[in-house]
Amino acid sequence: MNESKRVLSGMRPSGKLHLGNLMGALKNWKELQDEGYHCHYFVADWHALTTDYEDTKEIKENVMEMAVDWLCAGLDPGKSTLFVQSWVPEHAELHLMLSMVVPLPWLERNPTFKEQLKEIEGKEIFNYGFLGYPVLQAADIIIYKAHYVPVGADQLPHLELTREIVRRFNNLYREVFPEPEALLTEYPKLPGTDGRKMSKSYDNAIYLSDPPDVVREKIRTMMTDPARARRKDPGNPEICPVFDFHKVFSSPEQISWAEKGCKTAGIGCVDCKKVMGDNLASEMKPYFEKRAEIASKPEKVAEMLREGSDRARKEAGKTLKEAREAMNI
Amino acid sequence: MNESKRVLSGMRPSGKLHLGNLMGALKNWKELQDEGYHCHYFVADWHALTTDYEDTKEIKENVMEMAVDWLCAGLDPGKSTLFVQSWVPEHAELHLMLSMVVPLPWLERNPTFKEQLKEIEGKEIFNYGFLGYPVLQAADIIIYKAHYVPVGADQLPHLELTREIVRRFNNLYREVFPEPEALLTEYPKLPGTDGRKMSKSYDNAIYLSDPPDVVREKIRTMMTDPARARRKDPGNPEICPVFDFHKVFSSPEQISWAEKGCKTAGIGCVDCKKVMGDNLASEMKPYFEKRAEIASKPEKVAEMLREGSDRARKEAGKTLKEAREAMNI
Repeated sequence: MNESKRVLSGMRPSGKLHLGNLMGALKNWKELQDEGYHCHYFVADWHALTTDYEDTKEIKENVMEMAVDWLCAGLDPGKSTLFVQSWVPEHAELHLMLSMVVPLPWLERNPTFKEQLKEIEGKEIFNYGFLGYPVLQAADIIIYKAHYVPVGADQLPHLELTREIVRRFNNLYREVFPEPEALLTEYPKLPGTDGRKMSKSYDNAIYLSDPPDVVREKIRTMMTDPARARRKDPGNPEICPVFDFHKVFSSPEQISWAEKGCKTAGIGCVDCKKVMGDNLASEMKPYFEKRAEIASKPEKVAEMLREGSDRARKEAGKTLKEAREAMNI
Repeated sequence: MNESKRVLSGMRPSGKLHLGNLMGALKNWKELQDEGYHCHYFVADWHALTTDYEDTKEIKENVMEMAVDWLCAGLDPGKSTLFVQSWVPEHAELHLMLSMVVPLPWLERNPTFKEQLKEIEGKEIFNYGFLGYPVLQAADIIIYKAHYVPVGADQLPHLELTREIVRRFNNLYREVFPEPEALLTEYPKLPGTDGRKMSKSYDNAIYLSDPPDVVREKIRTMMTDPARARRKDPGNPEICPVFDFHKVFSSPEQISWAEKGCKTAGIGCVDCKKVMGDNLASEMKPYFEKRAEIASKPEKVAEMLREGSDRARKEAGKTLKEAREAMNI
């Protein structure tokens, strides 16, 4: 039944993916794929330009690295359409057409627009394309007539905007696009090694490309409850990022061992991290090995993306034709 | 020498063209073509959506009518590249890429944007695409690396914006685009039959498709100096729209006859208009005849546009490739 339902999601090409991306998105993407949805996953390289147009030298390389990680996480080009946004120029065309019907206030009130303007320092991003990226997002989604978009709660306003754009287009011209719905997913909380959000830019991430030794070493030097300065001090697992990892990667016995040992100072942080680090290294070893294999054949990855993009173009082209007919252009 | 220089200009598909379009733009376009420039002239159907997205039912028909008038005015698909904007989707792609580097204030301070927001009543045009149409215009021009753009003085701010966008792109990435220059042309002043600006929407226009009888009739009922209420009142040719026509379409003898006769009440408006109407009808008869012939073969016109657009795509594709390489996308 799921086969008739289309799913779409994308990621900006940030380079190698980390454990946060794996647990937060890729596992979910793979599940949707394996449940039989017709999934479209794309590397959003045009979107990367909205904030990083001043420094683009790594974009192409990052696109490839990301595709390697996708394959390594189990996305299957035989089941899902995996493609690069800018290799499907139909997105740009629909984006232009939609731009004609999207009122400026819809974009100006976009909470992410306002937040990012404040947050992103040192970059001049007050650009036309940055204001309009929800229009591009809408085009990305509806050009495949996607029914579902897996999103985090923070992205709900964007999806709502896409739905508004769909209603406006359908009302002005003709019923061409379905209104996509959110697939809200709960992700396990996985902080970076310094306790902040795991992010490439914080240098606190564990990568799918990290060999087991590196994984163990990153965990060995990971931040713990800062109040537990000495071995004999009891700790508070609830504020310890290592414990967040235990909850995801350790057995129930290990979790209760760690919790009790920490609170009573029965175990030291070194012991606690050793167990968790071994667990994580085992969990991630298959990814590392698969990744090395896939990365050794970059031309096959490029070919896979080319084929996926060609398939995407065919689908997108069909929708675009309908949209043009509806607009009489 | 001109052959190495590229010229670009476009017109929104407003339907059948009138004498104002002929004298104000088409004659100049033909001259540039005949002087050996490599000219690109396009029907700007996407631009039509920036203000008329709510009512698009006549766009396709208007594109064809406009192409017929172009041929009828002497534009030659063997010499110039004549094409339809939306048939060259590369424009949309470059537009998206440029959108990433164009600061919003550049667009918000665009005088035409502010004016049109005030002037165009009854239409909701405060849309993303309307704000961004100078970005689309820039893409239209630079995707052919045009050296010259024939413009009226009112369009100079737009061209300046294109030049700013070119400088910004070239500085950020690499020297890809030349800065296009304006070809300012002085046009003879030709009002509509009611003395206002000649415009389809004022219902005061004389069309290339008007047969000689209709031309004469439109001139016969044309507005004259309103102060000359009776035959015996002397008139003031300087404020009479008929005299503006005399200056363009009559012989020096006829002009001085009309001027003197009007000022002294030696001739009546009926006499004056008769002479001018005959002149204009003769001037326009060849257009009318040629137009009827061309319009009788709509499939040939469509084919001509298809071929022109294919040629344009090849050129545009080359530039786009360079632009993508420069941006590393």
